[in-house]
Amino acid sequence: MNIKLVLKLIGRILLVEAAALVLPLLVALLYREDPAPFLLTIAIVALCGLGLSALPCHNRQFFTREGFVSVGLIWIVTGLVGSLPFLFCGYFATPMDCIFESCSGFTTTGASILTDIEPLPKGILFWRSFTHWLGGMGVLVLATAIVPTMGIRSHYLTQAETPGPVFSKLVPKQPQTSKILYSMYFALTALEIVCLKLAGMPLYDCFIHAFSSAGTGGFSNRNASVGAYGSVAIEMIITVFILLFSLNFAVYFLLLTRRWKEALESDELRFFFLVVSGATILITLTNLGFYSSVWESLRYAVFQVASIISTTGFATADYALWPQFSQMILILLMFCGACAGSTGGGIKCSRILTLLRSIRRDLHHIAHPRSVEVVKLDGKVVSEDTLHSLLVFVGAYVFLVFGAALIISLDGNSFAVSFSASLTCVSNVGPGLEVIGPTGNFSAFSSLSKGVMSLCMIAGRLEIFPILILFSPTAWRRT
Amino acid sequence: MNIKLVLKLIGRILLVEAAALVLPLLVALLYREDPAPFLLTIAIVALCGLGLSALPCHNRQFFTREGFVSVGLIWIVTGLVGSLPFLFCGYFATPMDCIFESCSGFTTTGASILTDIEPLPKGILFWRSFTHWLGGMGVLVLATAIVPTMGIRSHYLTQAETPGPVFSKLVPKQPQTSKILYSMYFALTALEIVCLKLAGMPLYDCFIHAFSSAGTGGFSNRNASVGAYGSVAIEMIITVFILLFSLNFAVYFLLLTRRWKEALESDELRFFFLVVSGATILITLTNLGFYSSVWESLRYAVFQVASIISTTGFATADYALWPQFSQMILILLMFCGACAGSTGGGIKCSRILTLLRSIRRDLHHIAHPRSVEVVKLDGKVVSEDTLHSLLVFVGAYVFLVFGAALIISLDGNSFAVSFSASLTCVSNVGPGLEVIGPTGNFSAFSSLSKGVMSLCMIAGRLEIFPILILFSPTAWRRT
Repeated sequence: MNIKLVLKLIGRILLVEAAALVLPLLVALLYREDPAPFLLTIAIVALCGLGLSALPCHNRQFFTREGFVSVGLIWIVTGLVGSLPFLFCGYFATPMDCIFESCSGFTTTGASILTDIEPLPKGILFWRSFTHWLGGMGVLVLATAIVPTMGIRSHYLTQAETPGPVFSKLVPKQPQTSKILYSMYFALTALEIVCLKLAGMPLYDCFIHAFSSAGTGGFSNRNASVGAYGSVAIEMIITVFILLFSLNFAVYFLLLTRRWKEALESDELRFFFLVVSGATILITLTNLGFYSSVWESLRYAVFQVASIISTTGFATADYALWPQFSQMILILLMFCGACAGSTGGGIKCSRILTLLRSIRRDLHHIAHPRSVEVVKLDGKVVSEDTLHSLLVFVGAYVFLVFGAALIISLDGNSFAVSFSASLTCVSNVGPGLEVIGPTGNFSAFSSLSKGVMSLCMIAGRLEIFPILILFSPTAWRRT
Repeated sequence: MNIKLVLKLIGRILLVEAAALVLPLLVALLYREDPAPFLLTIAIVALCGLGLSALPCHNRQFFTREGFVSVGLIWIVTGLVGSLPFLFCGYFATPMDCIFESCSGFTTTGASILTDIEPLPKGILFWRSFTHWLGGMGVLVLATAIVPTMGIRSHYLTQAETPGPVFSKLVPKQPQTSKILYSMYFALTALEIVCLKLAGMPLYDCFIHAFSSAGTGGFSNRNASVGAYGSVAIEMIITVFILLFSLNFAVYFLLLTRRWKEALESDELRFFFLVVSGATILITLTNLGFYSSVWESLRYAVFQVASIISTTGFATADYALWPQFSQMILILLMFCGACAGSTGGGIKCSRILTLLRSIRRDLHHIAHPRSVEVVKLDGKVVSEDTLHSLLVFVGAYVFLVFGAALIISLDGNSFAVSFSASLTCVSNVGPGLEVIGPTGNFSAFSSLSKGVMSLCMIAGRLEIFPILILFSPTAWRRT
């Protein structure tokens, strides 16, 4: 393990994060709020960053192992760094609350320990949502797009940070890929801000909600989340955008390069929209007795389905009051999650689809033992190695969800609360069931639970292995 | 698909089942109860059996596909056949209740729709527990042990019925293996009856509880289950026996043939006892505030842990009142289940262990990409094919649990109830959480839910694929 180079790299990333903190600082200054929380944070982060990146290191050895360890460490450090403005602003009860909120932000979970959001300074709320935007596409993707990578082959970093079973670069060079990804991300976010403004949302709120949609995070500056505006137009705009941000960004690149057929023939894309429509129809019908008309039922159903499957977690209705069948569908959507290569969380549609196809293949193999059948995705054969990693990942995911739920259950909450808290954190969704439903919050959990959930959010965002490897002796052993 | 031979085989099995029904008939006669329910059932089953087995069939083609389809169909038919005495006795509210109770019996689940067990005739209660005994080791294993198999290679049948990731015969010939298995099963059951009698249990109750322990089922003839006796000796005897019945029967064969080292070096065995001790210690400590002494806490903890991990489902305490942490441990034990090749259900310890080792291997592969590492169990390499099937099975298991929970949630029960109902049925445990806890029952569910749960119990008992293949077009297509 080339720990020196890893630390040097962490230093560089800290410098990028210090730069990113200038934006909320400007917002605080604009609204004549106390800039101290940001100034202090920037000073600390920049100092640490300078110190670490000045470390002498001549060994340039950097492979998958170093990549995974760096990504795991960088995300934990980033979670801590992001909590500093919350700590310094004085609005949070405990340091663990600050860490939870920051991890929830960067991992685009959107679970909050705040019971009353609206009194917070605008600069702090801006930072809170901006962490969604930074974390959505990835802190390291951003770093590789804007700073030279010290001779490190940067795909070792981005492959560990980018969600999905297969890592594919859009163009041969990773820094170039990162630039393209962030450009598309930036353009889509800007477009959403414009749309929301046209629909009558205040400009500041547009930024907040666009950042949260883009990262599929879920933080709002309003206590009633998107429901506060009571505007169908705003709800529809956000629905469309969170679905757009749930798609594999490679699809947009294919569209930009006019490879229409390839883009639209994605199996995952079809599966995703099939699940979204199926879930919307079922919930609309189930909730009919709950709303005055089919349209009203559809309006709340489509928003909530999009919000949950994209793992955003915005709310326009308190689904904790809906029939149990509708809530169970939302729980299944939390497991499923968005598409690979998007800003969304969860197991990812392509994995679910591949698993279903593996089951079908095994059935076929029982019926016709001598036939040789392969699992395909987008017409291409999924290699047995990829399939194996995918299946192990799903197993690890389920282990993590139930393992974390076990620790969280020490708080004595109901099974539904402990389980959904764990699931919503691992899948980076945000709200859960009962007291942590759309109108609830995570403040009542113990510090131990909040710590476990923070780690779960990071593990979920990084698809488990970069965090697991930090605790694995094999990674630290000499080769 | 050689459907004629499959039907002919079903006919044979029906004849075996008609013969098995003579035992509860004798019990009914002994207690001077109405023998009509059994006489009627025997007549119907024997008639159907004779009709089907007289079918002319010259095609002797019978492979894995026919094996899986036969096993799936036979278990569904057996569930229906077993419900007839319940139907005719008049103590059950609806035909679906009878089917549920019968499927719960044969699959050794032990979930009941009865709200008051004690007034039922002794013959009926005997049959109810006897289905556990028959289903535990397997209806087909029994059949291949006692009737000639019409030239069919019977391992195609027993491989689909025997739980575990790898199917291994004790001796080269399957009928011989079946005979050995049933002899050991019979001997252990007889031993338990003797022990329970010596501990002061009434003889009739000894049979009931020995059958239920042997099959790791859970039906009792007392409303308060094993708790009714309030005897530490009885509880300890049952704890020991349900743990013994949770072990791979191959271990006993190794012990009988004096291959001590092989028997005791089983990784699964060690893992199983590690989980049992770990869970017992954690629950004992967590429940300390709930009981007056450490010993009392330990007494209830060890019984409940053994009862749940063996997927028996007996109760001596209402664990639905225990701290949430203890309940969450029990939920995890439901997933885990007993050892492969035992009469217990769940995912099985060897699969959980292999999955954990696969995760460790993948971590190792990230750290050392050029190294080639294999997953081992009992010192032997687990082939990549076996590993693949195992991982797909775990995925299918989780799908089944949540899919069934979705349908069950239509009844409007809480998330904990819908989820635990599904899990306890698929894992063949018996009790769940809240209203379906140890003192509750399954009577309040809708017929749809009961139907789904019945199918889930069979799917869980047969490890999913023999049931899935019945619904798969590929199995019915011509080769």
